[in-house]
Amino acid sequence: MTEQPLTHLNAAGHAHMVDVSGKDETFRKAVAAAEVHMHPSTLDLILSGSMPKGDVLATARIAGIMASKKTADIIPLCHPLRLTSVTVDLIGADDKIEIIATVTTRDATGVEMEALTAVSAAALTIYDMCKAVDRGMRVDNIRLQHKSGGRSGEYNAK
Amino acid sequence: MTEQPLTHLNAAGHAHMVDVSGKDETFRKAVAAAEVHMHPSTLDLILSGSMPKGDVLATARIAGIMASKKTADIIPLCHPLRLTSVTVDLIGADDKIEIIATVTTRDATGVEMEALTAVSAAALTIYDMCKAVDRGMRVDNIRLQHKSGGRSGEYNAK
Amino acid sequence: MTEQPLTHLNAAGHAHMVDVSGKDETFRKAVAAAEVHMHPSTLDLILSGSMPKGDVLATARIAGIMASKKTADIIPLCHPLRLTSVTVDLIGADDKIEIIATVTTRDATGVEMEALTAVSAAALTIYDMCKAVDRGMRVDNIRLQHKSGGRSGEYNAK
Amino acid sequence: MTEQPLTHLNAAGHAHMVDVSGKDETFRKAVAAAEVHMHPSTLDLILSGSMPKGDVLATARIAGIMASKKTADIIPLCHPLRLTSVTVDLIGADDKIEIIATVTTRDATGVEMEALTAVSAAALTIYDMCKAVDRGMRVDNIRLQHKSGGRSGEYNAK
Amino acid sequence: MTEQPLTHLNAAGHAHMVDVSGKDETFRKAVAAAEVHMHPSTLDLILSGSMPKGDVLATARIAGIMASKKTADIIPLCHPLRLTSVTVDLIGADDKIEIIATVTTRDATGVEMEALTAVSAAALTIYDMCKAVDRGMRVDNIRLQHKSGGRSGEYNAK
Amino acid sequence: MTEQPLTHLNAAGHAHMVDVSGKDETFRKAVAAAEVHMHPSTLDLILSGSMPKGDVLATARIAGIMASKKTADIIPLCHPLRLTSVTVDLIGADDKIEIIATVTTRDATGVEMEALTAVSAAALTIYDMCKAVDRGMRVDNIRLQHKSGGRSGEYNAK
Repeated sequence: MTEQPLTHLNAAGHAHMVDVSGKDETFRKAVAAAEVHMHPSTLDLILSGSMPKGDVLATARIAGIMASKKTADIIPLCHPLRLTSVTVDLIGADDKIEIIATVTTRDATGVEMEALTAVSAAALTIYDMCKAVDRGMRVDNIRLQHKSGGRSGEYNAK
Repeated sequence: MTEQPLTHLNAAGHAHMVDVSGKDETFRKAVAAAEVHMHPSTLDLILSGSMPKGDVLATARIAGIMASKKTADIIPLCHPLRLTSVTVDLIGADDKIEIIATVTTRDATGVEMEALTAVSAAALTIYDMCKAVDRGMRVDNIRLQHKSGGRSGEYNAK
Repeated sequence: MTEQPLTHLNAAGHAHMVDVSGKDETFRKAVAAAEVHMHPSTLDLILSGSMPKGDVLATARIAGIMASKKTADIIPLCHPLRLTSVTVDLIGADDKIEIIATVTTRDATGVEMEALTAVSAAALTIYDMCKAVDRGMRVDNIRLQHKSGGRSGEYNAK
Repeated sequence: MTEQPLTHLNAAGHAHMVDVSGKDETFRKAVAAAEVHMHPSTLDLILSGSMPKGDVLATARIAGIMASKKTADIIPLCHPLRLTSVTVDLIGADDKIEIIATVTTRDATGVEMEALTAVSAAALTIYDMCKAVDRGMRVDNIRLQHKSGGRSGEYNAK
Repeated sequence: MTEQPLTHLNAAGHAHMVDVSGKDETFRKAVAAAEVHMHPSTLDLILSGSMPKGDVLATARIAGIMASKKTADIIPLCHPLRLTSVTVDLIGADDKIEIIATVTTRDATGVEMEALTAVSAAALTIYDMCKAVDRGMRVDNIRLQHKSGGRSGEYNAK
Repeated sequence: MTEQPLTHLNAAGHAHMVDVSGKDETFRKAVAAAEVHMHPSTLDLILSGSMPKGDVLATARIAGIMASKKTADIIPLCHPLRLTSVTVDLIGADDKIEIIATVTTRDATGVEMEALTAVSAAALTIYDMCKAVDRGMRVDNIRLQHKSGGRSGEYNAK
């Protein structure tokens, strides 16, 4: 399948920010995850604090937190939300770093995109700080792990 | 008290934006890619223009282009660069959409992060616009495909 | 020396973000409109999808939505608000495109500026994408059409 | 003509930031203008410094300057440029304020959009600061007046 | 490999945006201040409106207001808040300008950082606009003067 | 009515971004510094990594670097510049942390404001992360220490 059919199918309809005026402001939580795959020696350099650009994990964590606050500025149809907490955890093992972001709000729509944006920005920051030694790194498996609050109920990835 | 103790506490090293003052302003290009895996019926809805949030591919493309211009604002140690072109292509097939971003500049450092940020934002936008029907979507294989220009020479992913 | 001399020099009064702490958080809605006047052949190129920069209407629509979320960052004295919906419609006829933006919130002040910012950004985006073929385009008649919610009651342009 | 045909014609092609890599970095200048129409008594309040939100003209001027620097963040396909000067002038008479913005750069593409964005943001700021007394204000005639530098030569509006 | 080693390496603890989900949305207020020390002749130029870059006090005031709205974008762990008012006052005397910012919200956490960011940005703007005539200016005594609302009670600087 | 009355009302002069079109793009460097005064026990908590919000120094360093890239967005009349390096150093002793930022560019105007913005944001971040234990902290002595490059020659604070 080439890109042509997609273009044709742009009968797609008009993008808009969906109306959440009628939804309750309730506690909502989302957990997202991502993996950065790398050469084991790259992970060693990160864990031993030898990357020339500086402390990879602390920088990635802050990048993730700050990006979650920019979600509505990055994702065109996201609503601006008041986040009540953001946590980004990084776990290194073998040939990858697993990134997990947990975001909460007390607002009219969920924070899945905020959690997904946090892990993506943290992953890209790891890539940026290590690319001089390992251009072949790969960000994989960006996914929603958990979502609760709101009318659609709880979701847990299998 | 000198800075040593602090340095020691922060064993991973101090983050900083590396100096590119001495590098030539030359033509540089980077190509990055990502995949969004989804249920085949989700892709059908996208391609038939039936997603309730609107035209997924056009929105994702613009999100990618705009995010590439925000790279230095999202990735802590990236240099602000003058991008001379950004293209985001989306190709749907079976159970995934492949996203490819090509970015060029005429500046003192490369645009790998701009291309990677573009594909990531486009992928997250697809997730956002389709999550109501398919929470299990997954962004995979965010990677650098090609890089040219600058002292480190050409890179092509295997 | 007291503040008087400064105040005097600044005879027009000191800019400040007015206090809305005492206002109720209620449902509020605003509709704004704008027109982009152009050569009929320019509109033909837009409608036939022949503009070299790409799909003008989809891009303008997203630009409008994203700009409405940046309103408090663009207009100095606007309050940051949680928008609950944003819609941007574009209607082409003869020698102009009419742009209409509808914005809602559930907050302590109205969203007129968000709707006006949306139509303005959409209009400028149309200009940007078509200026290579028609430098004489003109954005006209940016105006508030409707406002409801809040203490000042409903407003409808004549 | 309804909006349907537009949708159909989204065969429009894919939005992209056009390549200016091959263009010379030269001095470029653009002048744009806009008018804010208002009740004569509204203009009197502005000129006598009696608007409750503060100094309208100084605030609008700064809003225009700051918005011109955000152009690439507001207009999806604009290139980020290094502006070398921005001036915003405001002239009040009878029932309107005329806004004129002059922007220069030394870069590979022109600054028309930066000048147009400056006048638009200044106009919206005037609306915001005066809307409590005059909801019927109207922004009109946003247009490019002059453009020079670059391969396309000089342009002067008739 | 577990997270322990990473944690250990990062002995100073992991940065995170603390959870305010359980805190009440109440009226909160903060007042911060700063001083810009300068040559008396610099202050004279400011007060007589002779600075070549333009009206220093009006520009600094708007810079402070706009920066307060960017606080969550500048300070990594700050929560995005809905500010309900921002006022920036400037008082010149002898060899300094005193800047006082008052910020209010009706949200789940306080606005100390918004008030401190406002005075800092206003102070830096004064520096920027006067540095051509007085490079030795100094910003001093950025401090919280008052805070009220929320569980921690009222604070007044001694 | 001509512009004179407006000009008169705005006796302090019209703010504008000064023209640097005619200035050479040369290597430029600026060093700025700031001090955060605190209770000695607060510094102990920072240095021992016991602050509940996380690693204060790493977070402040990144906040400073990222803020330097936002300078033109925070300070109204600053030109957008391509920074070629940013370094933020933090030195703790007794009852204060000294912050030093070094910024370079190869552009048409200097980077003093970028260095001053970096130390200010780093200082405010320290305040934010420690305010729960020490509301009386004070940011002092924000100043330019060194500037070189450009026509105005080298400057070193006494």
